[in-house]
Amino acid sequence: MNDQVYLSFDALHHLVSAALSGGGLSARHADAVARVIVKAERDQCRSHGLYRIAGVLKTLQGGVAEAEAVPEISHSDDKPIIKVNARGGFSPLAFECGAPLLAEKAGRFGIAAMAINDCVHFSALWPEVEQLAEAGVAALAMCPSNAYVAPAGGIRKLLGTNPLAFAWPCTGGLPYVFDFATSVAARGEVELHRLDNTPLPQGWAIDAEGRPTTDPAAALDGALLTFGAHKGSAVATMIELLAGVLIGDLLSIESSALDNGRLLAPRHGELLIAFAPDAFGAASPAAHTQKLLAEFTAQGARLPSQRRYAARAQSLSRGIGISRENLAKLQQMSSGLMPTELH
Amino acid sequence: MNDQVYLSFDALHHLVSAALSGGGLSARHADAVARVIVKAERDQCRSHGLYRIAGVLKTLQGGVAEAEAVPEISHSDDKPIIKVNARGGFSPLAFECGAPLLAEKAGRFGIAAMAINDCVHFSALWPEVEQLAEAGVAALAMCPSNAYVAPAGGIRKLLGTNPLAFAWPCTGGLPYVFDFATSVAARGEVELHRLDNTPLPQGWAIDAEGRPTTDPAAALDGALLTFGAHKGSAVATMIELLAGVLIGDLLSIESSALDNGRLLAPRHGELLIAFAPDAFGAASPAAHTQKLLAEFTAQGARLPSQRRYAARAQSLSRGIGISRENLAKLQQMSSGLMPTELH
Repeated sequence: MNDQVYLSFDALHHLVSAALSGGGLSARHADAVARVIVKAERDQCRSHGLYRIAGVLKTLQGGVAEAEAVPEISHSDDKPIIKVNARGGFSPLAFECGAPLLAEKAGRFGIAAMAINDCVHFSALWPEVEQLAEAGVAALAMCPSNAYVAPAGGIRKLLGTNPLAFAWPCTGGLPYVFDFATSVAARGEVELHRLDNTPLPQGWAIDAEGRPTTDPAAALDGALLTFGAHKGSAVATMIELLAGVLIGDLLSIESSALDNGRLLAPRHGELLIAFAPDAFGAASPAAHTQKLLAEFTAQGARLPSQRRYAARAQSLSRGIGISRENLAKLQQMSSGLMPTELH
Repeated sequence: MNDQVYLSFDALHHLVSAALSGGGLSARHADAVARVIVKAERDQCRSHGLYRIAGVLKTLQGGVAEAEAVPEISHSDDKPIIKVNARGGFSPLAFECGAPLLAEKAGRFGIAAMAINDCVHFSALWPEVEQLAEAGVAALAMCPSNAYVAPAGGIRKLLGTNPLAFAWPCTGGLPYVFDFATSVAARGEVELHRLDNTPLPQGWAIDAEGRPTTDPAAALDGALLTFGAHKGSAVATMIELLAGVLIGDLLSIESSALDNGRLLAPRHGELLIAFAPDAFGAASPAAHTQKLLAEFTAQGARLPSQRRYAARAQSLSRGIGISRENLAKLQQMSSGLMPTELH
């Protein structure tokens, strides 16, 4: 399309980073947040792409995120636990600061964990677990969010949309990666139904009185439901316990109380666990993995990251497409003009 | 009921253990397997209770399980990884041998993992994670099974019913525990529908041609589906990778190939991960946990283990009820009579 321009990863990263710096983020945070946004655009995951820029800067201007926060890492050399205190900054820089040490500890101990505390959470989790898999370790990541979700059998908000992500390294190929919300749908999808004035599918939500509803406005006043009924509810609760209570950080209800209805990016923690196949006695993990995953293809089942990887291959061959309108906005923002919505 | 007798945990354990010994299991294995069976009866989880005895002995007589196997533990003092080689014996003894060391290592390192290899898997996972939580650590457990389940978008069996279990210690109270199959229903439930000649609910299964079916016989020829569509499929796949490939043990398709249609207890591995709240900086974990879990009760949502705990309280006050018929069968089996079905 004539309206699109195609940029390399680095060129778009430079533009987005400059726009975030123009909006007040420190250079290191702008660099890290921009990397996540451009990875999402590259993989055509628009829900975590350019359109998030306005939200990042709104959260910054709302005084929720620290623009200059320098993450602080603490760990003991003889222990496989890393704590990264994000000191109120956005999560991507905290992750990037701790990730190499997490991979190193997993390699040395067989299993290792990293808690990110006191961050303003921004980003899907797949770029994080994928980066760890590229460093040769399997990784699991989870975090609370704001309380938008009712537990199974419940009648009001308690749990977050609590994402769970996992990556498994595949020698010589792209890792096996999944990343999903433990709610049946993302809050953003309910918002889209409200804007489009279309009813929700059955089973997505309850209203403020705890009754099933297909009305998106009533759902936003009420609560989303978890995926897979009581099983998804159990997983979401586990995430509150491990990535909230265990790491000494906020539950989703506590993040929401702090947010106080402003719907800015939530402030809470995150837990990552990394595993080194060597330490557990994996025998020919590459061939063994292939034996499992090849069977998905053989029976026509899509692997969770297949769509993203196809989009990525296209982006790498022709560039990442963005509209001329978004390009102009990014250029204006890098000069310090007020952020505008990018679509 | 006149037909019931009520026994203490120890009395029933003694009977079941003697019955298993009578059937040929070594004293140590009989003791460990019986403990799991009696815990299930105590909690009115009949699907893992007395009726499993016949299956255990059938698996033993089928030459799949080693009656006298002595588990072998290997680990390095400076690493948080434990490998327990079950040497072809049933899993409960392997778990019991390794569990205290797993809890000790989790306390010392903050996080620790235990791989059980080459076991004949028997037991729900909740007794294991609950025992670890009682030792003060949070625990996650998972294992493959036989390949009964199609991946999301697939048309035939590939994944196991792959259970995932989690326990979180609650100071001064019973732990938060869940344990569920990642298939939408257990294979046993499909068997019950076949015996009762009742159709399956929609969404449980596909037939041998990969088409949705509500016919239980067609489902048993075809495949079960995962819970929560593609999300449950992703979790089940993760379990194949972590509790199969990572630990160098069998995938569900490999367990099934070994079983070769005999439908005996599957031979494969298991992975457990334990976490010590202290090491991650949990602040007042008891109060923080209570803040989350009390809200379940406040809104009428049942916690995953609530039904089991209510049954347990009843069993502890009046004894564990078993039928006179089952009591007689257990007594006969302890004299070495051939196993009969217990109901």
